[in-house]
Amino acid sequence: MKALVYNGEHDIALIEVPKPEILKPTDAIVKVLKTTICGTDLGIYKGKNPEVESGRILGHEGIGIIEQIGDSVTNFKVGDKVIISCVTVCGSCDYCKKQLYSHCKDGSWILGYMIDGTQAEYVRIPHADNSLYKIPETISDDNAVLISDILPTGHEIGVQYGNVKPGDTIAIIGAGPVGLSVLITAQLYSPSRIIMIDLDDNRLELSKELGATDVINSGSSDAVAKVLELFEEGVDVAIEAVGVPSTWDICQKIIKPGGYIANVGVHGKSVTFDIEKLWIKNITVRTGLVNTNTTPMLIKSTAANKFNLDKIITHQFKLSEIDKAWDVFKNGAKEKAIKVIITNDLT
Amino acid sequence: MKALVYNGEHDIALIEVPKPEILKPTDAIVKVLKTTICGTDLGIYKGKNPEVESGRILGHEGIGIIEQIGDSVTNFKVGDKVIISCVTVCGSCDYCKKQLYSHCKDGSWILGYMIDGTQAEYVRIPHADNSLYKIPETISDDNAVLISDILPTGHEIGVQYGNVKPGDTIAIIGAGPVGLSVLITAQLYSPSRIIMIDLDDNRLELSKELGATDVINSGSSDAVAKVLELFEEGVDVAIEAVGVPSTWDICQKIIKPGGYIANVGVHGKSVTFDIEKLWIKNITVRTGLVNTNTTPMLIKSTAANKFNLDKIITHQFKLSEIDKAWDVFKNGAKEKAIKVIITNDLT
Repeated sequence: MKALVYNGEHDIALIEVPKPEILKPTDAIVKVLKTTICGTDLGIYKGKNPEVESGRILGHEGIGIIEQIGDSVTNFKVGDKVIISCVTVCGSCDYCKKQLYSHCKDGSWILGYMIDGTQAEYVRIPHADNSLYKIPETISDDNAVLISDILPTGHEIGVQYGNVKPGDTIAIIGAGPVGLSVLITAQLYSPSRIIMIDLDDNRLELSKELGATDVINSGSSDAVAKVLELFEEGVDVAIEAVGVPSTWDICQKIIKPGGYIANVGVHGKSVTFDIEKLWIKNITVRTGLVNTNTTPMLIKSTAANKFNLDKIITHQFKLSEIDKAWDVFKNGAKEKAIKVIITNDLT
Repeated sequence: MKALVYNGEHDIALIEVPKPEILKPTDAIVKVLKTTICGTDLGIYKGKNPEVESGRILGHEGIGIIEQIGDSVTNFKVGDKVIISCVTVCGSCDYCKKQLYSHCKDGSWILGYMIDGTQAEYVRIPHADNSLYKIPETISDDNAVLISDILPTGHEIGVQYGNVKPGDTIAIIGAGPVGLSVLITAQLYSPSRIIMIDLDDNRLELSKELGATDVINSGSSDAVAKVLELFEEGVDVAIEAVGVPSTWDICQKIIKPGGYIANVGVHGKSVTFDIEKLWIKNITVRTGLVNTNTTPMLIKSTAANKFNLDKIITHQFKLSEIDKAWDVFKNGAKEKAIKVIITNDLT
């Protein structure tokens, strides 16, 4: 089959590889219908994850049709159309018992990282019963792809960890795919104001269409000063969706006493924590990898047309054109790319 | 009346000052029976709080007898014996409505800081109805003094913000008065192991008497390595009760995925936050000043003999000897001092 393979830093290629096989009775083989590229994939490509082996098929998002199931898989049958969760869940370990699936001892984020992923014609999914989700007919295939990762990540690590409540003032720093997912899912909880902060006017314009009440371009203005002009004491919730020290710093400077900072961004460097100012402010800082424990709710909310997901899908490619998809995603701002959908040529 | 007055950095003196008077109908004048010295007072003395005016009477802890009440005080009458809460609570502002009394807009920590405090024969208490608590007869006067600040601070900012639950493994860094209050109140929630970390063997020995299951001297051994020897994945809860970068660093290095770091320490410098390692660990960091919203519960628990508070009261002085009390407290480790009780000569 065809698959996008990582061969080391800055070296990926669509090549012919053997089709995956059932290895354990809890596995399923899924024929991928659609997949996409994540910022984390880009991180691997850039060499941020030297632990990724050469020859690894990338990708942890996608939907597909179940082609084959292991003997102990009971929730699915061959032919089911499913969302492939970015997090694999054994359901049995201590962390799974606490719903901290992100740290599952026989799963967690492994797809396209520790085991072969979804940027391929077929993929093997371990613990299929806990790691796949049937797709209601009312959800389009393209929208379903966004429920693999960005929607639950934005919702759980941004909105839930940020403790977003009705009436809250919230600031989201970073209007990329995950920041926009925070924006979209935050509205389930009716905050009174949503301030979107980014360097890209195009993304800020899109944020307004998706429900931001205020936008700040942090390249052309002082984002901290602008936020404090709007809310003298700061915001109830600041959500970091970039992963660099400067965006963390905005969060810690605009947070109101009693507020929450939710860190969604993947960081490569430590940051300075102004605890000499914040020790007295009764703030909460939360970090994390998505648990996907709200995936069933997000499927229902998507089916009920709660989210305008079409607006964040900007590009379409065939799997045979995945090189082009990667080029567009690598130049996200220039290409005005948010999420690129890649469709299997076989479908 | 006699009062301990701050006259600028390293300059305090017991002098004669005018007795306080009712300024607002919500005030009460309390004759102080007993007071104590806090690490925060020591901070003011050392010049850490240049905002404190010269002439300020220090102290935010104590018990006393109500001498006079303003016209609108209804919960207390002259002659009542009361705990003076370290936090003054208006009860009406936005923060009070959220139980974030620590940020009360007409109160918060003001006693012995923004207004005159308790290291005196008499003290004026604003918003008396919300800021004083009657003392049950079964609580000794000395023990009651500890409910002004250290017991609620340890409980709320350490134990509650640390989300301590039955079975948890917890580490407390710092065995001073507040760290010991964390140790004492954590046991309300039945953690399975409590590791106490400090530089002082005397305090570690006391910690064992007060319920620590394990102690680590971080001066003579590598505390991080020792904790990870005990618990390979780290602890569920790490509580910082010192306020310096090195103790923060221990916390962030021993925290288990899904764990809580509760910062109780008062910091003077920023710290390095290893977010490049912790973004993926689903941790929660909480900071704060005490709200005293659990003071009523702590009074009931103290009355029910849940806490062994006598062990943390190491020294007794008269108010006329308050200079000696300060000297002992300044040399806490050498003097083996934890809490010093200062009794009004007038009683």
